[in-house]
Amino acid sequence: MAQAPGEIEALIALMARLPGLGPRSARRAVLHMLKKRAVVMDPLAQALARVAATARDCRSCGNISDYDICPICADNRRATGVVCVVEDVSDLWALERAGGFKGRYHVLGGTLSALESVGPDVLRIPQLVARIESENLREVILALNATVEGQTTAHYIAEALAPSGVTVSALARGLPMGGELDYLDDGTISAALAARRQV
Amino acid sequence: MAQAPGEIEALIALMARLPGLGPRSARRAVLHMLKKRAVVMDPLAQALARVAATARDCRSCGNISDYDICPICADNRRATGVVCVVEDVSDLWALERAGGFKGRYHVLGGTLSALESVGPDVLRIPQLVARIESENLREVILALNATVEGQTTAHYIAEALAPSGVTVSALARGLPMGGELDYLDDGTISAALAARRQV
Ligand SMILES: [Zn+2]
Ligand SMILES: [Zn+2]
Repeated sequence: MAQAPGEIEALIALMARLPGLGPRSARRAVLHMLKKRAVVMDPLAQALARVAATARDCRSCGNISDYDICPICADNRRATGVVCVVEDVSDLWALERAGGFKGRYHVLGGTLSALESVGPDVLRIPQLVARIESENLREVILALNATVEGQTTAHYIAEALAPSGVTVSALARGLPMGGELDYLDDGTISAALAARRQV
Repeated sequence: MAQAPGEIEALIALMARLPGLGPRSARRAVLHMLKKRAVVMDPLAQALARVAATARDCRSCGNISDYDICPICADNRRATGVVCVVEDVSDLWALERAGGFKGRYHVLGGTLSALESVGPDVLRIPQLVARIESENLREVILALNATVEGQTTAHYIAEALAPSGVTVSALARGLPMGGELDYLDDGTISAALAARRQV
């Protein structure tokens, strides 16, 4: 006899792999669910099944939503000719929380890395280049993390976009060195966005 | 446009209510799932749906498993005539992890509390009294937390069982004051169990 029945142990093991959780906290979370099956476990199981069944990557920007084209790309009021390039969906969400940006996004899905064999194609950079013409963009804002990888990637993109003549800007140096967007307060993100400079 | 699509926000909100998670860690956990849909989100959604559909309280001891009678109660080798009384399923799991106990359990589901109107009936104490005869028990081990509530409840149970003549013992004073079973190392739990004393 294991500590908990097999199906429950399997659930704990899967929960324990989520960031911020470990074996002990996963066990406590599952136990909490088990004790509140009607009000905690069932709604969570249903919400998770719904999202698992419907979530997909936006064909245009790489955002994750329930649609092939995400609500931001589908919103014509956001066809401002300005696209904000981010490394990750979490950064897009952070910018949306900050609330200062009214254009659309382009999610790279990471940063260039020779070590991990992440090249421009993996990062959806060709798709970004294509959007300049198809969406008649006049400005691309590089909102990459202030890390070495982020800045290397920003530099590569700025060079790749130079022939198109589009204005390329980057978030103002309001980001602390090594800072990651998803951990910054909304005010810092908004200020850096407002004071963005051409590169 | 919210930070994330509605269904995803709903999932984050439900995750954030789990113990050990907050809004930020729930967001990161959900984002991690969304980025690893095939290898993280889908298996977790399936495991959670399975457990939500099958988990139930053991009709005999109150343990949670996939069966009306849990594997411990169904295991005849554990019909040792000794029942270990715990406050919560997490304590049962902690004792099973410690591995020193070969009998069966009785899960109270909490402690007596006048403030929160938790009386003996809510705690399945009548069912414990009934098991003394139906299972021909010779010893009841009170493995309650070393808190004021746990010890008050232990005292009440010891008095309630006195007329039956069953031997009532308690975990040895190896538990630190205020300590909760689920947080203790296995060695401490095993030692306290082995040195249990009659009350
Ligand atoms: Zn989109
Ligand atoms: Zn049972």
